[in-house]
Amino acid sequence: MIERTNADILNMDKISRLNFVNSISGYKSANLIGTKSKAGVSNLAVFSSVIHLGSNPPLLAFVMRPAVVPRDTYQNIRETGKFSINHIHEDFVDKAHYTSAKFESYISEFQMAKLTEEYLGDFYAPFVGESKIKIAMNFIEEYNIKVNNTLFIVAEIQSVFLPETTLKKNGEVNLNEVNDVCISALYNYHKVEPLAAFDYVRPGNFPLNKLK
Amino acid sequence: MIERTNADILNMDKISRLNFVNSISGYKSANLIGTKSKAGVSNLAVFSSVIHLGSNPPLLAFVMRPAVVPRDTYQNIRETGKFSINHIHEDFVDKAHYTSAKFESYISEFQMAKLTEEYLGDFYAPFVGESKIKIAMNFIEEYNIKVNNTLFIVAEIQSVFLPETTLKKNGEVNLNEVNDVCISALYNYHKVEPLAAFDYVRPGNFPLNKLK
Repeated sequence: MIERTNADILNMDKISRLNFVNSISGYKSANLIGTKSKAGVSNLAVFSSVIHLGSNPPLLAFVMRPAVVPRDTYQNIRETGKFSINHIHEDFVDKAHYTSAKFESYISEFQMAKLTEEYLGDFYAPFVGESKIKIAMNFIEEYNIKVNNTLFIVAEIQSVFLPETTLKKNGEVNLNEVNDVCISALYNYHKVEPLAAFDYVRPGNFPLNKLK
Repeated sequence: MIERTNADILNMDKISRLNFVNSISGYKSANLIGTKSKAGVSNLAVFSSVIHLGSNPPLLAFVMRPAVVPRDTYQNIRETGKFSINHIHEDFVDKAHYTSAKFESYISEFQMAKLTEEYLGDFYAPFVGESKIKIAMNFIEEYNIKVNNTLFIVAEIQSVFLPETTLKKNGEVNLNEVNDVCISALYNYHKVEPLAAFDYVRPGNFPLNKLK
């Protein structure tokens, strides 16, 4: 076992530090966030920071660095209040990751990455046609994180679109069935397989009851 | 493709809603957070909301629901300013998950789950001996998320302890090597395997260069 202290991390070159700290929280969700400016330019960007914030009301959240990355996603969300979250599957990780290239603001990453710009109902923001799990989100509030000037964006689920086969009776969505991936570090994509599912746990219930 | 609207989600029974919304952000990190009260009672709890917040300074963050779950982890962090984050591997998911049973405050989940309470250097909070990637964290600040009264806890990395073999030259930590797992819904654990790693992407670089 080796130790890397705070000082060691600060002394790493920039890329190593980004890779190291981006690895160390564990595996991250892999999503494409779709937006469209008021002027009508669509935008698509890969995010690995989308998390569950609460179920009632149904809320998701993610972290942005508007001072560092191009601001298109953030600007569009604040202009329109709408964005989509689209799961990334094994068969289009390369196209999804290509959206992280620094394209000019007037360019749509949908076209560049050859991903299908899809509209559902009257929701303003575009979805990714190739994604089997798509979520329509309404912006709620943002928090400026003082210590490093990032933004924590909080939004409510307006609708979820998903294959009927993935929705289990207990409410779970089977992410393995649609080959969802996860991310580590800056650009490592991983495939995921079921390992164990447990029943609700009470003190004294050990060994645990496995669900399947 | 089916649709579940906000109203549909609110109309689900509580467990289905928890499962559904906890699935829909994608795969989640799997960590045990270790703390110890001023009075000396250690605590260990599984968290699936730990995320990367920034690399310079090195910051991680996670979501808590202090009004809902037992407050031991939160109380201990606020009393002492210290906690540990310990990655969960395939070989102890059952013990890790057992910490989610509602034990009384005076009971240590380390003992209940038969996980090794380990101390490193003079860091106040306990680590998990079975975990190969352990992080010593210093509390920095918290944000009360108004819409659902959760807390977003921001903390800085003091030290990372990890096997030398997992640390690559470019700073990445190989999470596959130590059999890190990820989580979906409330109690689904998954194993993870490498799929693709890409080089830094610039406009025009498509197809992408694969790193390995």
